Amino acid sequence: MKAVGICGSDVHYLKTLRCADFVVKEPMVIGHECAGVIEKVGSEVKTLVPGDHVALEPGISCWRCDHCKGGRYNLCPEMKFFATPPVHGSLANQVVHPADLCFKLPDNVSLEEGAMCEPLSVGVHACRRANIGPETNVLIMGAGPIGLVTMLGARAFGAPRIVIVDVDDYRLSVAKELGADNIVKVSTNLQDIAEEVEKIDKAMGTGIDVSFDCAGFNKTMSTALSATRAGGKVCLVGMGHHEMTVPLTPAAAREVDVVGVFRYKNTWPLCLEFPRSGKIDVKPLVTHRFGFSQKEVEEAFETSARGGTAIKVMFNL
Amino acid sequence: MKAVGICGSDVHYLKTLRCADFVVKEPMVIGHECAGVIEKVGSEVKTLVPGDHVALEPGISCWRCDHCKGGRYNLCPEMKFFATPPVHGSLANQVVHPADLCFKLPDNVSLEEGAMCEPLSVGVHACRRANIGPETNVLIMGAGPIGLVTMLGARAFGAPRIVIVDVDDYRLSVAKELGADNIVKVSTNLQDIAEEVEKIDKAMGTGIDVSFDCAGFNKTMSTALSATRAGGKVCLVGMGHHEMTVPLTPAAAREVDVVGVFRYKNTWPLCLEFPRSGKIDVKPLVTHRFGFSQKEVEEAFETSARGGTAIKVMFNL
Amino acid sequence: MKAVGICGSDVHYLKTLRCADFVVKEPMVIGHECAGVIEKVGSEVKTLVPGDHVALEPGISCWRCDHCKGGRYNLCPEMKFFATPPVHGSLANQVVHPADLCFKLPDNVSLEEGAMCEPLSVGVHACRRANIGPETNVLIMGAGPIGLVTMLGARAFGAPRIVIVDVDDYRLSVAKELGADNIVKVSTNLQDIAEEVEKIDKAMGTGIDVSFDCAGFNKTMSTALSATRAGGKVCLVGMGHHEMTVPLTPAAAREVDVVGVFRYKNTWPLCLEFPRSGKIDVKPLVTHRFGFSQKEVEEAFETSARGGTAIKVMFNL
Amino acid sequence: MKAVGICGSDVHYLKTLRCADFVVKEPMVIGHECAGVIEKVGSEVKTLVPGDHVALEPGISCWRCDHCKGGRYNLCPEMKFFATPPVHGSLANQVVHPADLCFKLPDNVSLEEGAMCEPLSVGVHACRRANIGPETNVLIMGAGPIGLVTMLGARAFGAPRIVIVDVDDYRLSVAKELGADNIVKVSTNLQDIAEEVEKIDKAMGTGIDVSFDCAGFNKTMSTALSATRAGGKVCLVGMGHHEMTVPLTPAAAREVDVVGVFRYKNTWPLCLEFPRSGKIDVKPLVTHRFGFSQKEVEEAFETSARGGTAIKVMFNL
Repeated sequence: MKAVGICGSDVHYLKTLRCADFVVKEPMVIGHECAGVIEKVGSEVKTLVPGDHVALEPGISCWRCDHCKGGRYNLCPEMKFFATPPVHGSLANQVVHPADLCFKLPDNVSLEEGAMCEPLSVGVHACRRANIGPETNVLIMGAGPIGLVTMLGARAFGAPRIVIVDVDDYRLSVAKELGADNIVKVSTNLQDIAEEVEKIDKAMGTGIDVSFDCAGFNKTMSTALSATRAGGKVCLVGMGHHEMTVPLTPAAAREVDVVGVFRYKNTWPLCLEFPRSGKIDVKPLVTHRFGFSQKEVEEAFETSARGGTAIKVMFNL
Repeated sequence: MKAVGICGSDVHYLKTLRCADFVVKEPMVIGHECAGVIEKVGSEVKTLVPGDHVALEPGISCWRCDHCKGGRYNLCPEMKFFATPPVHGSLANQVVHPADLCFKLPDNVSLEEGAMCEPLSVGVHACRRANIGPETNVLIMGAGPIGLVTMLGARAFGAPRIVIVDVDDYRLSVAKELGADNIVKVSTNLQDIAEEVEKIDKAMGTGIDVSFDCAGFNKTMSTALSATRAGGKVCLVGMGHHEMTVPLTPAAAREVDVVGVFRYKNTWPLCLEFPRSGKIDVKPLVTHRFGFSQKEVEEAFETSARGGTAIKVMFNL
Repeated sequence: MKAVGICGSDVHYLKTLRCADFVVKEPMVIGHECAGVIEKVGSEVKTLVPGDHVALEPGISCWRCDHCKGGRYNLCPEMKFFATPPVHGSLANQVVHPADLCFKLPDNVSLEEGAMCEPLSVGVHACRRANIGPETNVLIMGAGPIGLVTMLGARAFGAPRIVIVDVDDYRLSVAKELGADNIVKVSTNLQDIAEEVEKIDKAMGTGIDVSFDCAGFNKTMSTALSATRAGGKVCLVGMGHHEMTVPLTPAAAREVDVVGVFRYKNTWPLCLEFPRSGKIDVKPLVTHRFGFSQKEVEEAFETSARGGTAIKVMFNL
Repeated sequence: MKAVGICGSDVHYLKTLRCADFVVKEPMVIGHECAGVIEKVGSEVKTLVPGDHVALEPGISCWRCDHCKGGRYNLCPEMKFFATPPVHGSLANQVVHPADLCFKLPDNVSLEEGAMCEPLSVGVHACRRANIGPETNVLIMGAGPIGLVTMLGARAFGAPRIVIVDVDDYRLSVAKELGADNIVKVSTNLQDIAEEVEKIDKAMGTGIDVSFDCAGFNKTMSTALSATRAGGKVCLVGMGHHEMTVPLTPAAAREVDVVGVFRYKNTWPLCLEFPRSGKIDVKPLVTHRFGFSQKEVEEAFETSARGGTAIKVMFNL
């Protein structure tokens, strides 16, 4: 392992020993955004040799269930996934991993960019599920790490116009720099939705075909459902609230569909192709880098937990 | 006009002068489920002659907007629709209507069955949007008129197994008679959801691929979202609540999508083919028939408003 | 193994030691349409126990290539398939096979019906690729075994009207008995196409949405391409000719697409559900049955090779 | 009318009084690639005012047939299309045309670019039908005007790698300049296909997901069918041959589908958005410009008919 990023779920596990419904019961290595160098390969492996730089897809699915056989292996109930209890993660010196989940890096793609395939995959999978293309005008609720990778994905899938919304000026300025066509600052106040939808509409200047809710709160989802044009889609990526109170019925009555996402599937080749061709530059997302000493590890997790100007914190020194 | 059914929206307009966001401001004829006999045709009409029995599709769309041109004319913002203010409805002796929205009845399909094309279209459109076929096991929340037409549609689209859920024994017995594989009685108590999902699972005996919420309440939608298998769909057809409080996030995290419906498009040919071929028998849905006298009209609307054993009330005497 | 059907490819291998591009170089057991009784299971198998009646899906794919991971495992270049050289087939007393490719028979489905899952899968896969449903009027070119399973599949997927075409009266009479709405007898003469298309149109009485060419000759494909309505599909199932001379350009200019099929994927559950529910009865397709003695085996292959009144020849005594 | 391009079909009509199955029987104005300035609008038109620069979509469909209502209006049998007999074309000073087919040009898009929407639409429609995106590696057979607009479309839809094939060095050099990743020169000799497929594979360096045959000859189509990966698509755009002799069966047996195109639908907004945003620059395609004098008109058509270095000949002086 040479480059490992810190994800919000890693911080959760470290601090609370749980994330969503997953609970840590035995000591567990965390980390799942990673790239490294091949040390040894099995006797039947023909696609890799020691020394190859590879990015690792973290989930091993069963290939026997309906979901695996039907092309939606991300939904496999037998999935063994880095740092999802009780499976160890990849913030380690060495890991053993199936060859077909180790993707060779193109010459001009760094190990750090390889580790970024994982967060980028979330954005790419969301864009695929929402069917983004050159005719899809996109609204993104939330300019955190997930919002930003979704924005980069949407642009690479051809979205002609992207508006991004957040409560935080700094995040919005980053989003603008990374390519948003327009930004809208909003409040957390539920009373302001109607007025903010108006501002968003104005910022877009045309109908919104797909909204990504990358925060997942009542307010962001309500705004997304209200702002999307008839026949459009809202893709729920963030997971702020468990139960949601939202105007689902009027959205459904305009045939605005709600599309969910869980992790990703078959995204690594594309997530390596995008930086190779220059269609996506993930490097600006890595704001902080640390080494593997005890002291640096602690500082790294603190930095990630603190948020602020930290987008992606990476072990890569 | 020879056969006109009463819809819940007609009752709403009659009693409250509004339905959802539509408000009646001028006197308006109601009614939009209808069939009749052609009296006169325009000089350019080649598909119909006086005397033809026809079922009428009630909405006239603009054919100039993106939705119309893109194949989703039901979303046309310029739609002129029978009995949607300020457009008059079809509970009248005569109406003028475009020839391409008048569908000739097959010889073995009655005018009453022609009028039933309208409610059946709601079920057919929902089945199309949810992509029902011979591999889709179906749950239906609500055994009212909409639940029943959705059930008949799902069966005709090939659903191998259909479970239907309601709070009312009589409705469930009707559903069973009309072809549900299994029925489940539930309460209106939100506390009972987990337990009821278990009962529903047992009644289905296999994964639920698509759930139709034909009621549209917090409880029915929560049950539908929880009961549907990963990768499945929930189709929201009923409109009980405006704002909904439901576990949307965990459903999205299993990639259970929520699909909305608004009216229907291109359904009349299929809704005439189904009774022609015998794949659907809509006749048992018509439980009460009335003539057009003042007294009968009042009684008809009272019967429809009362619910109880009335499924569809029809003017057809 | 208790029931094994004979496929045309088995006869080819037996007589010529080859089939299409596959050549037999070492002695090879043939047979791949089969069902049997579980004798032993591996220690990790939880879905089966000795004594279970199962139908066997014959192909073992790699689950590492793009096709496998993307949900189209039938296109896997590493596929190991019963009786495709150099892999042995299943016309044997015992075979070792992965548990996830052994599908337990419902109580009311016989071993012979289990063996029929294989040919039926060809029809089911073709119907899925051509997207057959209750709005698809279907033309089938060729009333041989493949034409018949495609017809049964199309009916079970809801096709409202099916016309089947052949040169042979006997085959057509079988097709009619098994549920074709109409039959059309044609010649092998290329000059007759225009006239025969007219006869087919009349026999259908409405536009043809999907044509299946279950023969695969210049004439059958030309007829299919010409008869299908604008915006429809032709699904090429049969493989009579390698190179084809057909009016592809005028078909493409009406957006009639040509869809290919290779074997099948994820079809066994559906092919067991259809006979379980009674939607498809495959039993009439089995016209001859033989035991496993040397003499009977020879006779069985002769019977299958002769064609005539033999549709499916089965070892099942 | 201010800018009108010359299409191959215009030249055909001029020289032979026919094109494909369409025959000119009465004097007919030709031309259908056009843009101009609004002079007058009808009393109900709210989207345009005199002076607006607009590009014209040339076909008026019936909006009453199944194709129109189902979202595929390009297949409308009642279509009235500029310069398709007996409907007059748009190579005229003034035309009367429905407002919803006159698309206002963005400020930074010229009338000439507006006229180019028509040929670009052919490429855009082909890309949509073949479902091009950032994961689709594309082969284009033929570097004529249609091949070039398809290439520009494929790039704008996100195709990561495009190889284009032709017999002509000059055309290939233009293609390279306009953005092809690689070019391959081939012969017209049918014997060379296998060897040329190998060269194409090498030029691509990865599997070919979609091939566009923009020539439509036996050889180009045979090459396309052979070169495309299993599970891919061949889109037949060019119309060189009517009847085709091609290896259709082995392609179908790899589930390589053949997709046809007829004109386009709903393409103008996108064809204006692409030059507006800079994603496509159509200007280099216009190689010759002429005025409307008798002498210039004759010279313009001679130039277009001669081919050579002429890609698009435009009346725009």
